[in-house]
Amino acid sequence: MTVELICVGTELLLGNIVNTNAAFLAEQCAALGLSCYYQTVVGDNRERLIQTVQTALSRSDIVLLSGGLGPTKDDLTKEAVAEALGLKLVEDEASRALIAEYFKVRGMEPTENNWKQALIPEGGRAIRNHNGTAPGILVVKGGKRIILMPGPPNELRPMFTEEVAPYLRTLGGDVIASVTVKLTGIGESSAETKVADLMEKQENPTLAPYAKTGEVHFRVTARAKTEEEAAALNAPLVEELKRRFGTAVYTTDEAVTLEKAVVDMLLKKGLTMTVAESCTGGMLAARLVNVSGVSEVFKAGFVTYANEAKRDLIHVKEETLAQFGAVSRETAREMAQGAAEAAAADVAVAITGIAGPDGGTAEKPVGLVYISCYVCGKIDTQEYHFIGSRMKIRESVTAAALTQLRRCLIA
Amino acid sequence: MTVELICVGTELLLGNIVNTNAAFLAEQCAALGLSCYYQTVVGDNRERLIQTVQTALSRSDIVLLSGGLGPTKDDLTKEAVAEALGLKLVEDEASRALIAEYFKVRGMEPTENNWKQALIPEGGRAIRNHNGTAPGILVVKGGKRIILMPGPPNELRPMFTEEVAPYLRTLGGDVIASVTVKLTGIGESSAETKVADLMEKQENPTLAPYAKTGEVHFRVTARAKTEEEAAALNAPLVEELKRRFGTAVYTTDEAVTLEKAVVDMLLKKGLTMTVAESCTGGMLAARLVNVSGVSEVFKAGFVTYANEAKRDLIHVKEETLAQFGAVSRETAREMAQGAAEAAAADVAVAITGIAGPDGGTAEKPVGLVYISCYVCGKIDTQEYHFIGSRMKIRESVTAAALTQLRRCLIA
Repeated sequence: MTVELICVGTELLLGNIVNTNAAFLAEQCAALGLSCYYQTVVGDNRERLIQTVQTALSRSDIVLLSGGLGPTKDDLTKEAVAEALGLKLVEDEASRALIAEYFKVRGMEPTENNWKQALIPEGGRAIRNHNGTAPGILVVKGGKRIILMPGPPNELRPMFTEEVAPYLRTLGGDVIASVTVKLTGIGESSAETKVADLMEKQENPTLAPYAKTGEVHFRVTARAKTEEEAAALNAPLVEELKRRFGTAVYTTDEAVTLEKAVVDMLLKKGLTMTVAESCTGGMLAARLVNVSGVSEVFKAGFVTYANEAKRDLIHVKEETLAQFGAVSRETAREMAQGAAEAAAADVAVAITGIAGPDGGTAEKPVGLVYISCYVCGKIDTQEYHFIGSRMKIRESVTAAALTQLRRCLIA
Repeated sequence: MTVELICVGTELLLGNIVNTNAAFLAEQCAALGLSCYYQTVVGDNRERLIQTVQTALSRSDIVLLSGGLGPTKDDLTKEAVAEALGLKLVEDEASRALIAEYFKVRGMEPTENNWKQALIPEGGRAIRNHNGTAPGILVVKGGKRIILMPGPPNELRPMFTEEVAPYLRTLGGDVIASVTVKLTGIGESSAETKVADLMEKQENPTLAPYAKTGEVHFRVTARAKTEEEAAALNAPLVEELKRRFGTAVYTTDEAVTLEKAVVDMLLKKGLTMTVAESCTGGMLAARLVNVSGVSEVFKAGFVTYANEAKRDLIHVKEETLAQFGAVSRETAREMAQGAAEAAAADVAVAITGIAGPDGGTAEKPVGLVYISCYVCGKIDTQEYHFIGSRMKIRESVTAAALTQLRRCLIA
């Protein structure tokens, strides 16, 4: 079956935002075994939207639209789809009730245009949005399936994963099963080099690499008559990847993130942890707290951005700061040890570095970072050099800290 | 004049990479005053490429293509464009010489397929590529302009900036200037209701709303002969928006984020701040540390996820936790006051709430959050109800905390 993506939004046409929805949906569709030949971006313009939807319907079995479901007059996706299909818009009672509830819970009054979000093309089905007021919509007509989703990624992604993907899976044809082998602590090109022979001869299952910050994911995807058969086709390749990459593989479970893998290791060992963050300024703690149920492991963390904070809160020695500087192996080490003591935790991860764009010197350039892991009395401190924007460096550091801690917990 | 983008590549259709070329080219074209109504992604497939190029030529004055200029059999963009235009491919001598030189300099032998990169549609012009072997190509036919560029961003970007943009500028036409008016503390639909009349009559400048987590941005965009004229057209509408939204407007500077606006207010007042975060677990601190130069204001922060941390690090009373619970107005208040004291800061923001998906009760449901702002002895504590995933709730809370603090600093 073929699928086509239409992303609606003037901000995409103006280049104000990067189209991460298209990449997300394309990746998900590929994993579902759907062939995608076209992606289109079009603005909030009635005529052009109708034309684009009609073209897509003429050449693809499934059309996924994102964006333009907001309450404003600019938001025209639903109207254009209804017109392209020759359908009226009617009010969906359940959606109206959910919108009413959304505002009630917040003690706010909906304005007249909010009710527009409860309209759906006649014969369509609303798809519940747990993260906003715009429901998604599914319409089936003339053997074609059109699915509308809201544009904000934090609404679109869970809606696709929880509601749309399970529906697409029921459409039959061959079944697709995929397994994601997630690696950390290895770069994309070294990882690819290690499996060049497997990439070369891939057919069924296929093998595709995806680079994430500090991680490489390999998706193994097989197509077969039943899910069991597809899973059986995947198994030997997954085993081969695990064999080749060893402990760099942190999970083969799609739902497990790197922070969850680390938290699970700590839970299993019955260890508590804390953090002391300088340049990341809370990002590592925030990633740990992404994990629901982290409270058994993570009780407290320190954002010690200033020297005084490193000294007063986690007892880095004045002399250490004076002699080696805040961004040094010695300071990182004392931060880790001091944080573990101050939080009475078994494990501590300390980060100190220069995220830029200012603050770098010839000796200590932007991107220089020290990460120190204290694990039950043992301390491991590493030096890193990252490149990129302030944000990119900080995200890379956070991923590296999780990777280093994981390595220490394995050792 | 209208422009249309076609990005060629299977890796885009599979979601292996995000289409940053489209965002780059779209932004550049907007700055050149070109109207872009469509972006398409298509794979390395001859028929579909020809069809896509023909459609683009039928509706746009200028077609920019990226990708598919490599030396392999997969790379078909040039062939498809030549066929769509009914032109033969001929060898461009200068390009052949440059390819020979490229390999000579590197001490490498070109393979037979490298010479394919010297072919261009008859009557076309090669565009020099300083960063790779694939030249760009410009073809003018029937009043339409087709420009082909290589796909790798480090080849495409300099080629566009140095060669293509100057050429497009010679085609004349208007320039575009835009101003973004950023609001916080008001929902998208209420914001739009307040400017319904302005949205209604928009023409030049145009007015477009963008919803972000906890924020609404209005983009005002004018088109004129010169940048000065365009800016002059924008000014009255920007002033009107500022008048209507008052202090909800936190900036009209594209580069200023909400966290930067808050940090700038603190800098101006000479105040230092700290945070005490429970459910956000470091997200607020991490947003503040996004701001380069935050060190003058932000010295230290506390992630007090567990009750013990609230008690030991920031001195919330045991009785308060016992009587009202960790998620309560009283605890939030003591967290703010205690954090300010522990960090010797003038300002403290405390957050305690239930981000879910577990941990909610009938009395204290998932999404219930208390935010308390301590500003030089005065404390403001507010109750909020958010919905969505754990991540969505935490992001909303972080934005709300910045908004509440900003309000306290204005008051």
